[in-house]
Amino acid sequence: MKKFNTSPISGMQELTPALQAEFDRLKAGIAAAYHAHGFLHIETPMIERTEVLLAKAGGDTEKQIYKVVKTTESAEGADQALRFDHTVPLARYTVEHQNELAFPFKVTQIARNFRGERAQKGRFREFYQCDADIIGWGELPISYDAEVIATLVDAMRVLPFPKVIVRVSNRKLLNGLLEELKLEAVASEIFSIIDHAEKVPAEKTVAALQDLGISVENVVKITTFMQIHGALDEVLAKLHGLDVQNTTFTEGLEELQTVLELVPQLVQSEQAEVIADMLIVRGLDYYTGTVFETIAPGYEEIGSIGGGGRYENLAGYYTDQTMPGVGGSIGLTRLFWALKEHELVKVTDVQPVDVCLVPISANEYAAAAGLAKQLRAAGKVVDLVLTKKKLGDKLKYAAKVANYVAVIGEEEVESGVYKFKNLKTGEDSFSI
Amino acid sequence: MKKFNTSPISGMQELTPALQAEFDRLKAGIAAAYHAHGFLHIETPMIERTEVLLAKAGGDTEKQIYKVVKTTESAEGADQALRFDHTVPLARYTVEHQNELAFPFKVTQIARNFRGERAQKGRFREFYQCDADIIGWGELPISYDAEVIATLVDAMRVLPFPKVIVRVSNRKLLNGLLEELKLEAVASEIFSIIDHAEKVPAEKTVAALQDLGISVENVVKITTFMQIHGALDEVLAKLHGLDVQNTTFTEGLEELQTVLELVPQLVQSEQAEVIADMLIVRGLDYYTGTVFETIAPGYEEIGSIGGGGRYENLAGYYTDQTMPGVGGSIGLTRLFWALKEHELVKVTDVQPVDVCLVPISANEYAAAAGLAKQLRAAGKVVDLVLTKKKLGDKLKYAAKVANYVAVIGEEEVESGVYKFKNLKTGEDSFSI
Repeated sequence: MKKFNTSPISGMQELTPALQAEFDRLKAGIAAAYHAHGFLHIETPMIERTEVLLAKAGGDTEKQIYKVVKTTESAEGADQALRFDHTVPLARYTVEHQNELAFPFKVTQIARNFRGERAQKGRFREFYQCDADIIGWGELPISYDAEVIATLVDAMRVLPFPKVIVRVSNRKLLNGLLEELKLEAVASEIFSIIDHAEKVPAEKTVAALQDLGISVENVVKITTFMQIHGALDEVLAKLHGLDVQNTTFTEGLEELQTVLELVPQLVQSEQAEVIADMLIVRGLDYYTGTVFETIAPGYEEIGSIGGGGRYENLAGYYTDQTMPGVGGSIGLTRLFWALKEHELVKVTDVQPVDVCLVPISANEYAAAAGLAKQLRAAGKVVDLVLTKKKLGDKLKYAAKVANYVAVIGEEEVESGVYKFKNLKTGEDSFSI
Repeated sequence: MKKFNTSPISGMQELTPALQAEFDRLKAGIAAAYHAHGFLHIETPMIERTEVLLAKAGGDTEKQIYKVVKTTESAEGADQALRFDHTVPLARYTVEHQNELAFPFKVTQIARNFRGERAQKGRFREFYQCDADIIGWGELPISYDAEVIATLVDAMRVLPFPKVIVRVSNRKLLNGLLEELKLEAVASEIFSIIDHAEKVPAEKTVAALQDLGISVENVVKITTFMQIHGALDEVLAKLHGLDVQNTTFTEGLEELQTVLELVPQLVQSEQAEVIADMLIVRGLDYYTGTVFETIAPGYEEIGSIGGGGRYENLAGYYTDQTMPGVGGSIGLTRLFWALKEHELVKVTDVQPVDVCLVPISANEYAAAAGLAKQLRAAGKVVDLVLTKKKLGDKLKYAAKVANYVAVIGEEEVESGVYKFKNLKTGEDSFSI
């Protein structure tokens, strides 16, 4: 009988060992791809000074933040809190360790972050983010934006999607267009409307734009812009066709071209299609140039599988030194939950243990231990059953954890020949 | 100029990328050894209900615990807190998922825990514990104690010690002796005195025992017992020589023998010596049988490198079901700090990036990107310099992150032949 509620706190992922192994495999695959692209792994503490965490953050972040206190302290003045993303600790880290780093600093953080959100389906309070960032010292050429996108795309090869589509835009295009139309005053509202455009009917988007007092002529220009997407050449032609003379727009155009020409040359993955798509703005306000998101055709309702963009200055709150950056992130906890929902996670096929050795009695422990040692030295994952249960029970255990089983009795010890049975097919597979 | 204190909170480990890579290598080595022995990896949330965390804990733990609160809540009634070890979450997890697990449940957790201790040299508030545990359902044969010890010993192969000594005892021996001497009433005080005996002069230990009102005759018996250590046969002879008839003692003797006979058969490591040592009791009160600690000869002041033991019942606070367990742990954050202090961590030799490609101008980006793709496909970690700096600056960057560099100019693109220079020796090493 249970004496306590033993479920994890709601909003926390907790997996069985088989699912954990699959989660770990995806995480390792992402880490390996980041590493292959030359990103260096760092870990920052999960607890930071509240003033560091909230230096930049707005009201929503402050509401969601978990403060950390000792029993005797009050929450009000709590000067420590759990980080809610990797970006703020990365800014602090980069300033702190600037003399020990080589710039551009290519860096990856893959770990848990915390947000005290209202718990709901697919929303987690403790969640893995797999981040890759490149931080420049003073300046950072636009080509690095392509490298970040290529890195994320290569990392996605470990995911069970037959195809992914990377949708890339550049915020300077929309900013330039709005400057040209003299709509800077309502720019953030327009960004938000475009950000949500895919989730509402087209009329609603038009109505929302008109509600801002934008002329019909300009609404048409904006909606025409929004709908531009596809292969680079095609998109460039259409963007040139808008006849926007503004320098911000022109800069955005050149950057988009540079990035989209370089990405395919850098990407190893054959699973990815990289397109330009003016619908992509990304809600977060700190992006200043390149922005990108990724979807899997057929699984659009999962939403963005990974995305990111360029930010003008990583650590402006902590130092006078300008550090432009570009980064991308895969939200693995939410994504893994979505993969399970879509039955894209398979765990029943392969057991975590290669071979389970079952000595019939304690008389065979020495021989079984010697065999375990030998198999482990050869790189095998070996479990050794040392219970005094009936053979049938031992075999049941073996079938739950392992792919192969070898029963070790007097005969086997004497002959030195061990038979391995495939636990899925029930057939004797090999002997050593 | 810095505008903020950007150092991490005191008591938190934060490493440069090169040190992080070394830390990661040790962590991965430990994880691989645990896995090879058939331990399944799980992750439990870092935040748990306070009532779950404190169900068993005493006053010190409650004082050290970090409560987690939202801005508007008070610390006093905080019902969530950061876990301070892996054992309590494991107990909750095992009860919660009992129907999805195979018992004995061989499980590993390698992650960060949190204690709000006073910050001091070598003490961390956020620290990695690398745990391996085996949990039985109702019962768990003593042979599994040997498997846990063997697993930890094999995990220690990744550490830079030429030799480690595993010191094993069984609490039933001392408990049985104290029953025989009718000293049960002061047993916990005696355990504590023996636990500290190595850190104080022998007279102090004798005086402390006498202060408890123990007769000279019995003090001699206890100190004689304490000093018994060495190879199994020798220790067994000496323990038999004490002529203790008590059944608890006899049980301890048999268990110690079983464990110490089996461990060497299971261990792959050639770095380890496994001895019996009656000085080992381990401070924590929940061990009930086997206890062990590990030291590295020549580095005794580092203290125990890893240890653990048998506990009668993992989850008695959460369920009526008896679940005996045996586990071991390597405190990697503290250990890594000690390795650095003893200059046993080497980071300057190998760079994290295999090859750094340096295109001379943007005209060579396409060729460099193609080469990067090709090398990454072959498993190499490749960085690609896309800055517009002078060649000298690009090469300085390459030397900071990579082992080899290839400069890619017009000539290389035309010929398709790329020369790789060894950045340590300065010599041209190979071409492709």
